[in-house]
Amino acid sequence: MAITLEELQLATRNHGLPLEALRYPVTPVGLHYLLTHFDVPVVPDGWRLRVGGQVKRELTLSLHDLRARPPTTSVVTMECAGNGRAHLDPRPVSQPWRSEAVGTGEWTGVPLRSLLVEAGVSQRAEEVLFSGSDRGVDGGVEQAYERSLPLDEAFREDVLLAYDLNGAPLPPQHGAPLRLVVPGWYGMTNVKWLERITVLERPFDGYQQTRAYRLRRDEDDEGIPLTRIRPRALMAPPGIPDFLSRHRIVDAGPCPLEGRAWSGLAPVAAVEVSVDGGAVWTAAEVEPQLGPWAWAGWRFVWEAAPGDYELLCRARDEAGNEQPLVPEWNVGGYANNAVQRVPVTVRA
Amino acid sequence: MAITLEELQLATRNHGLPLEALRYPVTPVGLHYLLTHFDVPVVPDGWRLRVGGQVKRELTLSLHDLRARPPTTSVVTMECAGNGRAHLDPRPVSQPWRSEAVGTGEWTGVPLRSLLVEAGVSQRAEEVLFSGSDRGVDGGVEQAYERSLPLDEAFREDVLLAYDLNGAPLPPQHGAPLRLVVPGWYGMTNVKWLERITVLERPFDGYQQTRAYRLRRDEDDEGIPLTRIRPRALMAPPGIPDFLSRHRIVDAGPCPLEGRAWSGLAPVAAVEVSVDGGAVWTAAEVEPQLGPWAWAGWRFVWEAAPGDYELLCRARDEAGNEQPLVPEWNVGGYANNAVQRVPVTVRA
Repeated sequence: MAITLEELQLATRNHGLPLEALRYPVTPVGLHYLLTHFDVPVVPDGWRLRVGGQVKRELTLSLHDLRARPPTTSVVTMECAGNGRAHLDPRPVSQPWRSEAVGTGEWTGVPLRSLLVEAGVSQRAEEVLFSGSDRGVDGGVEQAYERSLPLDEAFREDVLLAYDLNGAPLPPQHGAPLRLVVPGWYGMTNVKWLERITVLERPFDGYQQTRAYRLRRDEDDEGIPLTRIRPRALMAPPGIPDFLSRHRIVDAGPCPLEGRAWSGLAPVAAVEVSVDGGAVWTAAEVEPQLGPWAWAGWRFVWEAAPGDYELLCRARDEAGNEQPLVPEWNVGGYANNAVQRVPVTVRA
Repeated sequence: MAITLEELQLATRNHGLPLEALRYPVTPVGLHYLLTHFDVPVVPDGWRLRVGGQVKRELTLSLHDLRARPPTTSVVTMECAGNGRAHLDPRPVSQPWRSEAVGTGEWTGVPLRSLLVEAGVSQRAEEVLFSGSDRGVDGGVEQAYERSLPLDEAFREDVLLAYDLNGAPLPPQHGAPLRLVVPGWYGMTNVKWLERITVLERPFDGYQQTRAYRLRRDEDDEGIPLTRIRPRALMAPPGIPDFLSRHRIVDAGPCPLEGRAWSGLAPVAAVEVSVDGGAVWTAAEVEPQLGPWAWAGWRFVWEAAPGDYELLCRARDEAGNEQPLVPEWNVGGYANNAVQRVPVTVRA
C-alpha cells in the first residue's frame, strides 16, 4: 500500500534512529527518534512547574528550584508505541515508522516521587496526570498533550522529571525545559514540555489515554492500554548501502553483525540471529545492559559467502516475552515488534 | 502520485526542519535538516586530514592541529538541493522533501584558504576535490562521497573546514570530526566526514558532480551543475495543527505571521505575503540577516477573519531572483523554490 502525502508530512517532520547509529551506547542528540504530536511549543518566560489536584500542598517550582535538588541520572531506552507500523498490512495511517523509532538517552533530573511526597498525595488518589504545553487537534479533539500514570508507577523510584539529556540542557524538541521519563514504558508516556502535574481521584479519560494508544482488534473494540515496551532486537545493517534502495552490499568473509536489544517488561535474556531467513537461529553474544532500563549490545560473527541473504535478529526477555516472526495487526498500528529483516548481497 | 516504500525509507532516516523551528535564529542541533547519502560512518582512531594532489607541500593534520589554528565562526543557512522535490509532478524518486530541508548553523573552523596557501597550489590547478569517509552505491556506482569546487570558490575567505556546530564539537550526523562549509551553495557541496582534500588539474568527473546534482530537462540532457541556493521564504505555520493532516487552526484577530528568508545568490531584498492564495501581495517587515550567508527573519501581522485561507510567502534577492508561483520540473527534482502554500482555517 503506497504512502500518502499526509503520512509523508509526518515522516519529514519526525525521524527515526538511522540504524547505523545503533553503534552508540547512548544516542547522540539529533539521532534519537523523535515524535512531535503537535508543534514544538514556545516555552514562556517565567516557566513554572505546578503540582496540584488531590494533594495537601500545591507546589510551584522554577527550573532553578528543580536543579537545586539532588539530581538522579539514568540511561533509558525509549521507543515509540507506533514503531513497526509501516510493516502492517493494511497500514494504519499515522506516522509511518518502519523499525527505527528508538533511542537511548542519559537523562538527568529529579525523581517524581520526591515531589509527590513533598506535595502530600491524598488517600483517595488513583492516578497522576502530566500536561504538556504542546497543543493541537487529534482525532477531532482540541487538546494539550496529556497522559496519566497509575499511582504505583508514579511512585517508582526511577521515574524522573528530566531537565538534561546527555549532560546538557534538554533541547527544545525533547521537551525543554522539563519532561517526564518513565523507564520501560512506550514513548507517549514521557510527556514533554511539562507544565502541570495533577493528582487525580479517578482515571484520566483524555484522548491520548482512552482513544489513542490502545491495542484494538477493530473499531468497536475498547482495547487495552499500551504501557511497557515489548522486546525487540535491531541490527545495524552490515556493509555499505545503496543510496535509494538502502539494499546492503557485504564483502565475503567474517562479517560482524552488531546491534542492540531491549524490553520494558524484563531484562534482556537472549538475542538470536538467523542468516537464512529464519530457518536456523544461533545465539548472539549479549553485553550487559547499560542500566536496568537501557538496551544491551549484541554481536554475532557471520561467515559470509557470496549470495543473497535475509538476515534476522530477535530478542527474548527474562519474563519469556519473545518477538513474533509475523506482525500482529491492530487498529492503531501499535507495538509491532515482529523481527527485523535485512536483505543483503554478499560479493566475492 | 503516492509515495513508495523506498522513498519512505529515506524519509524516516533523513529529516527536515519542523517549520515551527523557523523561530530560532540559529537552529538547535537535532532540528537542522539532515541528508545522509550513505551511512553515518565510523571515524577511525588516529583520524587525519590529508591535503594533496597538485600542491608543493602535502599536509597531514590532526584535529588538534586544526584546533590550534586561529578559528573563524560564521552563521550559515544550508538547504538541500532536493528541497521541494515532493511538490513536483511527476515526482522524481529520491528523498521526498516538501519544503523543510533547511537549517542555520553557527559553524566554527579553519578557513580552507589558509590550508591551500600553506600547501602551495600548483599553477595548473583547476579544482579542489573533497572526499568524505562515507561510502556506498549511488546510481549503480560504488563510491566514497566526493564533490569538487572551482579554484576561485575554494579560495573564498568564508569557506570553512568546520569542527564545531553551535559552539560544540560536530555531532556525528553533521560530519564529525570535520566537514566543509561553503556558504551560499546547496547542501551537497558541504562534504561531511572529510578525510582528504585533493587539488586537481582538471575538473572532477565523479558521480555526484557529473551525474547527480544537475538541472536536467530530460534524461538525455547533460544539464547544468547546481551551485548556489535560490531564494526562498518560509513561514512558521500559524495557530495550532491537526496531528495527522497538519492543517492549521487560527483564532480570529491579529495573527502574526513569521518566518525566515534566504538566498545564496545575493542578500535578501524583500519578502511578500499573500493571504488570498496569491492575488494580492503585501510586503513583510524584514530583519537584518544574521550574517552575509544567513537567513533573515520576517514578520507580517494578518488581521484574520473567520474562513478558509491559503497563506503564501515569497522572497526576492538583491540580484532580482524571485520565487516562482509554480514549480519548475527537472529530472532530479532539484532547486524547486516555488512559493510555500499554507492552508489555514480561521475560527471565530
